[in-house]
Amino acid sequence: MTYNDVDTPSVLIDLDIVEMNIQKYQRYCNSIGLNLRPHIKTHKIPALAKLQLAEGAVGITCQKISEAEAIISEGVIDDILLTYNIIGEKKLSRLLALAQRVDLSVVADNLSCITGLSEAFAKSDNKLRILVECDTGAMRCGVVNPRQAFDLATVINKLPGIKFGGLMTYPPVGKADIVNKVLLKTKDFLENNKIDVPVVSVGGSPDMWNADKISVATEYRVGTYIYNDRSLIERGTCELQHCALTVLATVVSTPTPERAVVDAGSKVLTSDLSGLVGYGLVVNYPHVTISNLSEEHGCLKSEGPTGLVVGQKIQIIPNHACVVSNMVDQVTFTRSTKVTKLQRVTARGKVW
Amino acid sequence: MTYNDVDTPSVLIDLDIVEMNIQKYQRYCNSIGLNLRPHIKTHKIPALAKLQLAEGAVGITCQKISEAEAIISEGVIDDILLTYNIIGEKKLSRLLALAQRVDLSVVADNLSCITGLSEAFAKSDNKLRILVECDTGAMRCGVVNPRQAFDLATVINKLPGIKFGGLMTYPPVGKADIVNKVLLKTKDFLENNKIDVPVVSVGGSPDMWNADKISVATEYRVGTYIYNDRSLIERGTCELQHCALTVLATVVSTPTPERAVVDAGSKVLTSDLSGLVGYGLVVNYPHVTISNLSEEHGCLKSEGPTGLVVGQKIQIIPNHACVVSNMVDQVTFTRSTKVTKLQRVTARGKVW
Repeated sequence: MTYNDVDTPSVLIDLDIVEMNIQKYQRYCNSIGLNLRPHIKTHKIPALAKLQLAEGAVGITCQKISEAEAIISEGVIDDILLTYNIIGEKKLSRLLALAQRVDLSVVADNLSCITGLSEAFAKSDNKLRILVECDTGAMRCGVVNPRQAFDLATVINKLPGIKFGGLMTYPPVGKADIVNKVLLKTKDFLENNKIDVPVVSVGGSPDMWNADKISVATEYRVGTYIYNDRSLIERGTCELQHCALTVLATVVSTPTPERAVVDAGSKVLTSDLSGLVGYGLVVNYPHVTISNLSEEHGCLKSEGPTGLVVGQKIQIIPNHACVVSNMVDQVTFTRSTKVTKLQRVTARGKVW
Repeated sequence: MTYNDVDTPSVLIDLDIVEMNIQKYQRYCNSIGLNLRPHIKTHKIPALAKLQLAEGAVGITCQKISEAEAIISEGVIDDILLTYNIIGEKKLSRLLALAQRVDLSVVADNLSCITGLSEAFAKSDNKLRILVECDTGAMRCGVVNPRQAFDLATVINKLPGIKFGGLMTYPPVGKADIVNKVLLKTKDFLENNKIDVPVVSVGGSPDMWNADKISVATEYRVGTYIYNDRSLIERGTCELQHCALTVLATVVSTPTPERAVVDAGSKVLTSDLSGLVGYGLVVNYPHVTISNLSEEHGCLKSEGPTGLVVGQKIQIIPNHACVVSNMVDQVTFTRSTKVTKLQRVTARGKVW
């Protein structure tokens, strides 16, 4: 069976490319002495997490408890960093259960979150490791100065059931130097005030090849690198042949020679533009743009004839791989054109 | 149990508002003598399709075969219009099976699609009804002039297993007069050439209250009207109190007084901007904008203090309801603040 026998739209994952991507970045991290902790939000598949660990990753990163629960459901994954402020009784009791099963760290950037974690883990045998999240310019979560990081670290080390594990940041893109500077300043502030900072966790696929510029980092989190996507091609992080995830679609209409419609819309490709023009890259048709998406229609156009005919199958490299694999209950594993397996996306839709 | 006991992020559906929306638009269609054929892509839930039919809808609209298969899985829905060009052997054999179970119509806008349908249904006892899709300015699928519609209708009536059922369009927004003109011209062209046009199917929630301006229409397809959303508020199609679908989210971080982060990101709200600024409307916090989304983080900001605190739950009206209900395996049915049921989104992710 080749992928041309697969019904459309389907998300194809080329395992040859997946393995190459995992190996290549693991080797890079090894060469600069940086621990690699892949983010499984991209693939949400236990078998792929195991490949990453087998190659040398120190553990994995998850974004939600439900994602962690799902990813450990099919085998031994024993080291998880949950890069999210865990809030509320329901989630805290599940976090406690998760900590019985794996070596667990979480992040926090505020007192309310830390107090909740302490109360939940107060009677636990093992203290929960908490990394303080620092904003280094991405303007998402994170304390905004070293003093705040110090204050939270101090509280963490005083409260029962929890212990300070280090610093973590979700960095802005293209600012490795600033990220390093902010984290170094924060780490120095803590260490000068007698708080050890054993881990400094940095991440982000766009700047993955500049990780060596962040000398303060002890570990690096990357998600998209396993599949790659159009946004990373555009940033120069990878090339087209490194993209493991493609959306297979069928041309269903060619209303005029300059237009075509495919059966992949925003319910597969998503509306994620990632700052680009158009909703994906049509493999072998660089002159064609995906100019508009309805829910189940992708509208393609070109200056001259598209060259596409009704019934033809095309492959699309989406702007953002992580959100596309989350749209489908299963993906199709391939090796080049050969289909090897229909694979359930185990942690798809796990938002709790 | 009230919705404040529900874990976040969750998609809440207020059934009181759902029922009001269904009734109100059915009454409007009744008053102008227009058949209503709701599009179930918005909710993907059989129980809600049944509500729509009980109120007087003539049948339902589906966008994909898998959506139709799922929606009829839980009870009697006997009239489906599948508004999609069905292409390829796998889908055609499923279409044939579907036609054994319900009164089925499909659309087509090209010869290749029509030939495939004819071959699949050649030996069927009942001819498959095909509506020819006409482009009236939306630049998606559809023939682009009356002559093409006539040519396809002629072929449909000649080939075995299929019969011409009328015209269908996915109209551009805010152009009711043009839509009517184009369809009238096409219908006249066919009728002047001795082809009956029993059905003219028009649709679209943004212009749902202008359906009376499209005098040529015999039926109207609407999806979003059952839930409504921010895009329809912005267009003046509905008001805030008519929005049945909201995303319940928890504030997980307030890095500065002017910023807050909630646990609903693009994997729940989607990146669908629908031409607006920001990713949704925060109920009771009109001064707060959802300025940026990561996969699991929603970044909120305001000119002055947001007034939000960590742990607080907020409700967000998303830009586009149809794509949000497709992100989650289940939604929470409520009546006002009371939770009445956790409801599976039966046809979620059904793209084949």
